[in-house]
Amino acid sequence: MSRALHLAERGLYSTDPNPRVGCVLVKDGQVIGEGFHERAGEPHAEVHALRMAGEAAKGATAYVSLEPCAHYGRTPPCAEGLVRAGVARVVSAMQDPNPLVSGKGHGILAFHGIEVSWGLLESQARALNPGFIKRMSTGLPYVRVKLAMSLDGRTAMASGESQWITGAAARADVQRLRARSSAVVSGIDTVLSDNAALTVRLAEAGLDAETCARRGERQPLRVVLDSHQRLATHPDCRLLQSAGEVVLAHGSAQLVEELVTRVQSLSLPRSSTGLDLQALLRQLAALGCNEVLVEAGATLAGAFVSAGLVDELVIYMAPVLLGSLARPLLNLPLQQMQEKLRLTIQDMRQVGEDWRITALPQVAD
Amino acid sequence: MSRALHLAERGLYSTDPNPRVGCVLVKDGQVIGEGFHERAGEPHAEVHALRMAGEAAKGATAYVSLEPCAHYGRTPPCAEGLVRAGVARVVSAMQDPNPLVSGKGHGILAFHGIEVSWGLLESQARALNPGFIKRMSTGLPYVRVKLAMSLDGRTAMASGESQWITGAAARADVQRLRARSSAVVSGIDTVLSDNAALTVRLAEAGLDAETCARRGERQPLRVVLDSHQRLATHPDCRLLQSAGEVVLAHGSAQLVEELVTRVQSLSLPRSSTGLDLQALLRQLAALGCNEVLVEAGATLAGAFVSAGLVDELVIYMAPVLLGSLARPLLNLPLQQMQEKLRLTIQDMRQVGEDWRITALPQVAD
Repeated sequence: MSRALHLAERGLYSTDPNPRVGCVLVKDGQVIGEGFHERAGEPHAEVHALRMAGEAAKGATAYVSLEPCAHYGRTPPCAEGLVRAGVARVVSAMQDPNPLVSGKGHGILAFHGIEVSWGLLESQARALNPGFIKRMSTGLPYVRVKLAMSLDGRTAMASGESQWITGAAARADVQRLRARSSAVVSGIDTVLSDNAALTVRLAEAGLDAETCARRGERQPLRVVLDSHQRLATHPDCRLLQSAGEVVLAHGSAQLVEELVTRVQSLSLPRSSTGLDLQALLRQLAALGCNEVLVEAGATLAGAFVSAGLVDELVIYMAPVLLGSLARPLLNLPLQQMQEKLRLTIQDMRQVGEDWRITALPQVAD
Repeated sequence: MSRALHLAERGLYSTDPNPRVGCVLVKDGQVIGEGFHERAGEPHAEVHALRMAGEAAKGATAYVSLEPCAHYGRTPPCAEGLVRAGVARVVSAMQDPNPLVSGKGHGILAFHGIEVSWGLLESQARALNPGFIKRMSTGLPYVRVKLAMSLDGRTAMASGESQWITGAAARADVQRLRARSSAVVSGIDTVLSDNAALTVRLAEAGLDAETCARRGERQPLRVVLDSHQRLATHPDCRLLQSAGEVVLAHGSAQLVEELVTRVQSLSLPRSSTGLDLQALLRQLAALGCNEVLVEAGATLAGAFVSAGLVDELVIYMAPVLLGSLARPLLNLPLQQMQEKLRLTIQDMRQVGEDWRITALPQVAD
């Protein structure tokens, strides 16, 4: 199963909107077939593994990182493929996270007399697909907020001057975060003040050639919160001049004329503090977004955190002090200690000269 | 030598104002004597090791973590002791850091025909005595600034509410920092608002019984910056009610009457931003302070950092967000990115649920 999980991980940057899945076929203690899902529309992991094994699959054990599918999508159901190949036993790391189909694949296998079990290395398997699992089980994407700060928790000088706090290795790491995300979300202020393209620059991501080739030129959806469609007056900005689709989330009934042919319109209800972020996320999930990366300023990032919509904070901390006049990490106007937001530090590691902190907001009691 | 360094470390909390030193005597591949300096006024490491070896010391090699002393202090010079015992060879980790006596101990040994070398594991040896080395070589103590902050770089709510950001393990670690320090420096605001005693509470430090016994009840000097002697109107505060000496650093010619019998007076010149901190440190070094721990609010801690007087920042980072209204880590009114202060992260580790960051300010180019 460990091998199946490693194989699945090779699809980290390319299977979207599908999950990353790996499969290993074992018979008499020998691996006779293996594979992973590479791209949506292409064969699932089980198909690759069965093709490699050929006739030998008969009587083998299949280790799969996710319950084999039971439905006819762009490819026939894998559960039936495993039955036809005559495998004797299927071990899955986890059940399908979609409550509507969960257990169906295992059911088909068991119905045909195949020995079925699941739960082996489940937590590792879940970690491979946080977005797919959350979307399937809640209708919302997995939301990761990326921030870059100084050791004293500041993101920019009071003037807005901010380039560059973190080093090249941290910026390459951010490219990898973008590359694994279905959508990158930002605010119109950041887009205009940084003239940000929000694209994946694969050459800067430090990925191997095979992974880059597998991913290709596909760009994540670039989603800009722009309540009053200020983007219309900046037709030459890098966001509109670069490759990939732009979704403009606004608060009007329809797009202004200048933007109609250039961006996809996403009309959102307004809440007391701005556009309704939960509605935004629900729409993005409906568009097939698994992992969403928020790369925004303190106001928008703070709004996501305040609304309890964040699954993971990824904070790049540079070994510098920017001082007490500089801009805060997040606009969070808390008054009392009891309002403090608790986090769980999931990971802390050095990236170049900077440190990357992965922190998960704790669900309130 | 590694053994000698480990022995030296056992004096971490008790040798002050002397350095921590260990010694191992080896003959024919066997350890025949070893020891370390336990407390000022008691025998040096070499004396313990020579006593243990007795007659066998003749012809042995002595590994010492610091150049043997050449002067008559409270104990006779160790260099002569090694000569008298007839050791054949002395290996020191480092020379004496005092430029006035550096090389004298080695000189005595060499003069008597003993083979002398130094520099083995020198960086580890230097790390044992940052304060002693700095005081001897510059006339200033090693200044460590302790801070506790949230992940977003805040130390307290806007109201001042701050207890407790960090957990019990981090607070125990702070007790160990105090216990190894010659002086704890704070400001009158912190002393009064927290009603802080600034004492070492050895029971909370998590040290073994032997180390506690070796240290005893001795308290570091408690140094309070109190420009206008506001302490005089708070005779019942915990600082004055608890054990140990208090040094009041003020800006007047002399102490007010209420304080004369209760604190030691330290009159300092005033600079444009408050009391002259460099003068304070020079005075503390003159009092024999090796390592000084600054436990102060954002203003005083920021002043030490701004003045370039800090050797080490020890920051306990709690996994919480306190928000953008909360108090800053350090009052450092920087305006432009080019003014940012660069640090070197020397160590990063988990302490309970918090993280301890040890960062060294980089000397400006």
